[in-house]
Amino acid sequence: MPAPIVSRRDIEFFLYEMFDIESLTTRERYQDHDRESFDAAIDIAQAIAEKYYLPIQSKVDRNEPTFDGNKVHIIPEIKAGLDAVIAAGLTAPTTDYEMGGMQLPQIAASGAFAYLSAAASTSLGYLSLTHANCNLIEAYGSPEQIEKWVTPQREGRFFGTMAMTEPGAGSGLGDLTTFATKEEDGTYRVKGNKIWISGGDHDLSENIVHLVLARVKGAARGVKGISLFIVPKFLVNNDGTVGQRNEVALAGLFHKMGGRGHTSTALSFGEQDGAVAYLVGEENKGLMYMFHMMNEARILVGTGAALTALTGFQYSLDYAKGRPQGRLLSSKDPLAPPVNIIEHPDVRRMLLTQKAYSEGAYALCLYGHQLADDEKTAPTESEKKHASTILNFLTPIIKSWPSEWGPKSNDLAIQVLGGHGYVNEHPVEMFYRDNRLNPIHEGTTGIQSLDLLCRKVPMNDFKGYQAFLTEMYDTVDSAQSHEKLQLYAQQLKDTLDNLKAVTTAVLDASKTQNIDMVFSNSVSYLNMFGHITIAWLWLRQAEVASKALDKTPHSDDEKFYNGKIQAMKYFFNSELPLTYHWGNLVKNIDSASFDTHPDWL
Amino acid sequence: MPAPIVSRRDIEFFLYEMFDIESLTTRERYQDHDRESFDAAIDIAQAIAEKYYLPIQSKVDRNEPTFDGNKVHIIPEIKAGLDAVIAAGLTAPTTDYEMGGMQLPQIAASGAFAYLSAAASTSLGYLSLTHANCNLIEAYGSPEQIEKWVTPQREGRFFGTMAMTEPGAGSGLGDLTTFATKEEDGTYRVKGNKIWISGGDHDLSENIVHLVLARVKGAARGVKGISLFIVPKFLVNNDGTVGQRNEVALAGLFHKMGGRGHTSTALSFGEQDGAVAYLVGEENKGLMYMFHMMNEARILVGTGAALTALTGFQYSLDYAKGRPQGRLLSSKDPLAPPVNIIEHPDVRRMLLTQKAYSEGAYALCLYGHQLADDEKTAPTESEKKHASTILNFLTPIIKSWPSEWGPKSNDLAIQVLGGHGYVNEHPVEMFYRDNRLNPIHEGTTGIQSLDLLCRKVPMNDFKGYQAFLTEMYDTVDSAQSHEKLQLYAQQLKDTLDNLKAVTTAVLDASKTQNIDMVFSNSVSYLNMFGHITIAWLWLRQAEVASKALDKTPHSDDEKFYNGKIQAMKYFFNSELPLTYHWGNLVKNIDSASFDTHPDWL
Repeated sequence: MPAPIVSRRDIEFFLYEMFDIESLTTRERYQDHDRESFDAAIDIAQAIAEKYYLPIQSKVDRNEPTFDGNKVHIIPEIKAGLDAVIAAGLTAPTTDYEMGGMQLPQIAASGAFAYLSAAASTSLGYLSLTHANCNLIEAYGSPEQIEKWVTPQREGRFFGTMAMTEPGAGSGLGDLTTFATKEEDGTYRVKGNKIWISGGDHDLSENIVHLVLARVKGAARGVKGISLFIVPKFLVNNDGTVGQRNEVALAGLFHKMGGRGHTSTALSFGEQDGAVAYLVGEENKGLMYMFHMMNEARILVGTGAALTALTGFQYSLDYAKGRPQGRLLSSKDPLAPPVNIIEHPDVRRMLLTQKAYSEGAYALCLYGHQLADDEKTAPTESEKKHASTILNFLTPIIKSWPSEWGPKSNDLAIQVLGGHGYVNEHPVEMFYRDNRLNPIHEGTTGIQSLDLLCRKVPMNDFKGYQAFLTEMYDTVDSAQSHEKLQLYAQQLKDTLDNLKAVTTAVLDASKTQNIDMVFSNSVSYLNMFGHITIAWLWLRQAEVASKALDKTPHSDDEKFYNGKIQAMKYFFNSELPLTYHWGNLVKNIDSASFDTHPDWL
Repeated sequence: MPAPIVSRRDIEFFLYEMFDIESLTTRERYQDHDRESFDAAIDIAQAIAEKYYLPIQSKVDRNEPTFDGNKVHIIPEIKAGLDAVIAAGLTAPTTDYEMGGMQLPQIAASGAFAYLSAAASTSLGYLSLTHANCNLIEAYGSPEQIEKWVTPQREGRFFGTMAMTEPGAGSGLGDLTTFATKEEDGTYRVKGNKIWISGGDHDLSENIVHLVLARVKGAARGVKGISLFIVPKFLVNNDGTVGQRNEVALAGLFHKMGGRGHTSTALSFGEQDGAVAYLVGEENKGLMYMFHMMNEARILVGTGAALTALTGFQYSLDYAKGRPQGRLLSSKDPLAPPVNIIEHPDVRRMLLTQKAYSEGAYALCLYGHQLADDEKTAPTESEKKHASTILNFLTPIIKSWPSEWGPKSNDLAIQVLGGHGYVNEHPVEMFYRDNRLNPIHEGTTGIQSLDLLCRKVPMNDFKGYQAFLTEMYDTVDSAQSHEKLQLYAQQLKDTLDNLKAVTTAVLDASKTQNIDMVFSNSVSYLNMFGHITIAWLWLRQAEVASKALDKTPHSDDEKFYNGKIQAMKYFFNSELPLTYHWGNLVKNIDSASFDTHPDWL
């Protein structure tokens, strides 16, 4: 029997016990749902993942897309998998019924998608980008644009992308040089080159809807002069049928270390007369609109990183339970039969670390999805605002923590398998390669750390920062009432107090000293904040588990709950103390990197 | 101009300033050498690396060896590169003149090989295993065996392997089932299966000399009944010509994530009558002999890991100096031209971290090579013994620290390049894949950590441990005399004192408590000891640099020396404090992993 893609018991723990998603069914939008319908969505996703994706995992990895100079070739199994997801109505499970969606809470959809994302890893990127593309057009496009571009995407006939990065600019979006000129009919013509466009060309759908950042001729330089355009691969006739080819050409494919289910392309727009383009919203507001999609994409990146870590954990756990090798140090009899490697304490350490990282990361992402639900459907406006404030604050952490620590989890999955982990007879080396993209795309870890420390923390007079800290302190209070958790609640409180001191110190320093120096340890700040956030989520998990054990100490789930408490202990003992070290670097404005002259390296 | 493979200035710093290899020329064995001859060896190695290896790096990676069911296919460029190394006499540069060698000190040879190993990464494995194979036979084989098997290997006509691991046993060598039966003529017949045999089959040489661990029929079970045999691919006639095929068959190739320059094979010995085999030394002493080769291989693994880190550092440094993107936080003018990314403090942090890891790791390996030289050629017996004791003690750290932290360095090289680092237009993603094998082969990090804590530390009444600590305390004393280094000398002293306290605590606990629990944090102990060792080597580097700066403050090398001092500061501020955290886990016998029942995971 193959290793489970993810642990169903764990997903149920998160959805029904920790985040109590059944309580969402009291909200009007979700009133037709109940645990049965949530479970049904998970069942369908699991079935598709097991039937279409798990069997082709290795084939997808070994057959990256190719470009013959004319078109892209993708193995047909990818289309079969995507078609199965589309046929099951899972393309946009959170969308309104009237748009063909299931109107599921985002957190429930994410639980179901866990199976698909973990098994299909990057090849589902075609659909998630399409979904995010639709959400942006729905938010900022005209009714005609929604009708023309969103509807066929929701139906799975068109796929969508986002096209931001340019060869000469990279993360420096203000330097982009793609430009647009307005035509008399109100449309635009776009010319320029874009790179790293995921899903930028393929034959998997009838059409591709690119959302392209460009500068209207004469607009301001820098980020304030950027506008957003819909630029389709094929023009669409007024009756909705696909018309002639637009000037969007594939310039080449990137050959990635992993994530080979999803093409990464260089695109050339408007090599002759300019590609026909339709302005979204108003001119010069493009970057603000794009952030809508980017924020969504950032949470998806974090979720994908967490799931790749989770599936690697399950695989290595399954392997460790069935692979006999060696004997315990305490074994007196060298002739006794070998034990399964899970009996070796160091192997258990590597598994427990993976559990702590991957389930901690996934808890963080589900919390983000819960906030996204509350932002839209919480009973009161102030609750909506509260959720929105925290989600906005937390986005750099939701993006980065799973992306940084998920690959470390996958690294340990390889190590558990030893030599077998390094070769392609097992998928753990692929997970390791796949997950390595996540600290890079949608804003590198360095960029996220500056976003957190320089923007999100002080934003709106520290509103998001304060609101989130209050949430964590509330858990400290409630955990104090469980005798077995008191010690850990106190530890979390101490690190939170230290976080506040560090935050004050660094922001105070920024008022008087060179900010390039003061903020040069921003990644340490992100590490510190991220680890405290994950510790908080582990304490919450341990609270739920402790309560369940108090209620029925000898249930079938006793082992499961013990595992949750044990992973919490691991995280508090082995990981949380690191936050003091990172905090010292930030607080003391350690300037080792800043002081290093480029010529000294 | 391509990025430098490694920094020539840095290699010269290590060889001539820090380890003062010119002083070795007073020893009889090296009396014909001088700086000129050392430099000449480096020049040759650099020239071959640049001509034969750098241009094919990516081709080797993209064309892993294939097996058509009959034979292995390897791209011809690999043989061309190996032939160039053989033709230059670099196959065994440390070997006696009369064996065709250059009689170079091992540390000098290692400096020269830096270029080759870094550029060719794993494809030089064919030669280094051959060299280690010869060294073993020279140490324990008969004169006839040396004549028959070593001479053609030294000439580059035959290549050698070591064949230990079996599918059912993995790292548990005591469980191996390959067996040997003695024939009337004194030869043996071997039957069994081996896996992970690097260079196990190919057409690169006339013959392949396998050193195979097997159990003579009737021998004791466990590690005490293991013998070592020479089992050639082709039998060799009495006149030295290659004769008929022996019963050694290629069962398959492993498809590795990286390191594709070197085949990894499954071999089947003696499928019919048994493979003809020649006993090395005495029966049942095989594992002891094999450790000779393994210890050498472990130091080579560490060195390879350090060099892959070094070359990734150089590549990303070169990229960062020439890639404009974004502006500094302090930049008031959004329309100013973008700066090269090395100007961003977080990019400098990633470069400085790489410098600290990779040059620290390489210093450790060169120290190991220096000890190996002293073990053989130090002026007095007691100096030889002293070097041997420390080398034996340090082997698990020399093997593991570069293997664990080298890949982390390569990870940062990818991050410096961003999306460009994740695709195969640049080699950094290959370095990352290549280096991931090193924490696994020749004994995993977990195994090394137990070797260090349970064997090497208490061995011979703590002789190696004490001797090495004394070396480090001596540096503390000498560094105290440099005013600018006093602070760091004190920090090193404090961590050394803590290391002693932790060591005493854990070994005391092992006398009364369950040793599986007491030693369950052995990897934290290895991390702690390793980081302190690297800090010591950085303090030594900073000492050399400080002295040089004191002597000629405004020399051409000022920047270089400042870089050394800065990397030392980075390591002491950002890395060394972690040893307290690891030490606490060990000292407090943190039992989170040990207590985790397998069913809880």
